Amino acid sequence: MTGTPPVFPWRRRVEPVFHGNEKTMIPPDQDFAARVRGSFGRQQAMALLGAQMTEVQPGMTEIVLPFREALTQQHGFVHAGIITAIADSACGYAALSLMPPDVGVLTIEFKVNLLNPAAGERFVARGRVVKPGRTIMVCTGEVVAERADGARQTVALIQATMMVVRDRPAVAD
Amino acid sequence: MTGTPPVFPWRRRVEPVFHGNEKTMIPPDQDFAARVRGSFGRQQAMALLGAQMTEVQPGMTEIVLPFREALTQQHGFVHAGIITAIADSACGYAALSLMPPDVGVLTIEFKVNLLNPAAGERFVARGRVVKPGRTIMVCTGEVVAERADGARQTVALIQATMMVVRDRPAVAD
Amino acid sequence: MTGTPPVFPWRRRVEPVFHGNEKTMIPPDQDFAARVRGSFGRQQAMALLGAQMTEVQPGMTEIVLPFREALTQQHGFVHAGIITAIADSACGYAALSLMPPDVGVLTIEFKVNLLNPAAGERFVARGRVVKPGRTIMVCTGEVVAERADGARQTVALIQATMMVVRDRPAVAD
Amino acid sequence: MTGTPPVFPWRRRVEPVFHGNEKTMIPPDQDFAARVRGSFGRQQAMALLGAQMTEVQPGMTEIVLPFREALTQQHGFVHAGIITAIADSACGYAALSLMPPDVGVLTIEFKVNLLNPAAGERFVARGRVVKPGRTIMVCTGEVVAERADGARQTVALIQATMMVVRDRPAVAD
Repeated sequence: MTGTPPVFPWRRRVEPVFHGNEKTMIPPDQDFAARVRGSFGRQQAMALLGAQMTEVQPGMTEIVLPFREALTQQHGFVHAGIITAIADSACGYAALSLMPPDVGVLTIEFKVNLLNPAAGERFVARGRVVKPGRTIMVCTGEVVAERADGARQTVALIQATMMVVRDRPAVAD
Repeated sequence: MTGTPPVFPWRRRVEPVFHGNEKTMIPPDQDFAARVRGSFGRQQAMALLGAQMTEVQPGMTEIVLPFREALTQQHGFVHAGIITAIADSACGYAALSLMPPDVGVLTIEFKVNLLNPAAGERFVARGRVVKPGRTIMVCTGEVVAERADGARQTVALIQATMMVVRDRPAVAD
Repeated sequence: MTGTPPVFPWRRRVEPVFHGNEKTMIPPDQDFAARVRGSFGRQQAMALLGAQMTEVQPGMTEIVLPFREALTQQHGFVHAGIITAIADSACGYAALSLMPPDVGVLTIEFKVNLLNPAAGERFVARGRVVKPGRTIMVCTGEVVAERADGARQTVALIQATMMVVRDRPAVAD
Repeated sequence: MTGTPPVFPWRRRVEPVFHGNEKTMIPPDQDFAARVRGSFGRQQAMALLGAQMTEVQPGMTEIVLPFREALTQQHGFVHAGIITAIADSACGYAALSLMPPDVGVLTIEFKVNLLNPAAGERFVARGRVVKPGRTIMVCTGEVVAERADGARQTVALIQATMMVVRDRPAVAD
């Protein structure tokens, strides 16, 4: 079951297709992957949580967080803020992967829906750029819980707005 | 070009996959399509805007709005609130399509990102249920502008929360 | 009752206080009120809905929408998208009131909670800037329904992000 | 300056007033404060972050988080997800304070704007119920940074939707 997780069949029929300019999805910084991983490595909050970056593509990143009791809320699920932390980082670094050198990334805002209680062995956050811009980048992402038996369940959905920060040395990436 | 609009190739590689229970995507009301279309027909606001429902599937609907100058904001683009109106209706009726008889649908909240100015000949809103629940249904959707030359551009992205309203005759659908 | 509407007493005790730089709330454009009203007058969508701008202050505007059946959804309440349209315009023009000449305002995104069904004789939307910035302005606002007997009820809450658009003549205000 | 922090004067003039039924702000559970503090004490994530609950009122709670380098993102500010975690808990417990015995609280969704980089000695999150309901409670809140010199700055704004969960022993509070 692990290799072919259950998927809503209707999703395949009605999957959203984003229409736009493909050229904007080419990273202007050839070293985008090393740059993203380097910046992620400076996020001490990710180390505190125990999260690791597992994938970097142009306009997309993936972060994995193993379950620990120290991350839970009162019912034993991982706290919504912790789930949001990995979703936000995944989106922010998806955006950074498409930014030119000498700028930094800051989160302007995000909205998160918690679809299911965050129960599982590990949590996989993916963020994607859906609209790259010179100043603003819009991202979507989700966090999927993986159970011990290989079952997967989407636990959170994020829609986020990132800013390309120029000329502020304290906010360089 | 109209038949094969440009699409970000990376989207195909990293498309989100929602994991959950497929059975919850089977409409409990066999007449869901007629019910959805009937309720849409009672939305006088849609008639005022000139919007039409063009597709109803289990967990998904599509609404089309032709451009008119009367719908514009100060720069000549369709007003963000109008774009939101068709996106909200598309999501709400996607949710209603999966609801049992004798209940109604109400929007709890939504978040909309405006990705590009809403310029075009017509605007196609699609809403999809990503998490059907007994009381709460979470939907996502987008609005795509179609230009006279057949080009398409995604102009808005919505993430919305709908409520299944029971035992309130004034809110039946 | 109209003069002293019922208000949650606890709100007075725990009202949020926004901390920041007061100087950023001084309009850099002396003619901000005329400029805001002029731009609002070019929003044909507001005329279609029947909305009027009733107040412009530095960082705040108010828009009033009388009830009409043409604005309703399927249960006879004003459509959430219509409520959002006046809330969005109130926030966008609150932001424009604090912008320098020769720029324009665009909505990046907003999130709206529908607190109560939009029933009433008229609907008053207010938008306020809570964080003015050089490129990004964050606003909050609400829409209050006024009933025939003078009772008031908050029907929607908005949190919105506006962009200061420079060097794009098509998006000047 | 600590006792009288700078405040936008215009806020006093145009402060939002929420109109609704005051009776819904009376806690149906007399022991609401002990119940809220007890549930907060079971949030292991709050202990991991070092956050403490400093105030519980009907429909409002306050959580304080001292700065630590372990909480930072790549620029040395506290991570947006961590700021969100205390804002979400403050809102969730504001909602729980107005819930009857034998139910639990779950976050359905939230939207957070990051107004300023989260720099400071400590961070104070406040959450308030603006719409209490039988099934859904809507909250707003903010996180204020306090600097060593006593200056305050609002760093985040949250608008959140909480659910009253009945008949699920695993989600009792």
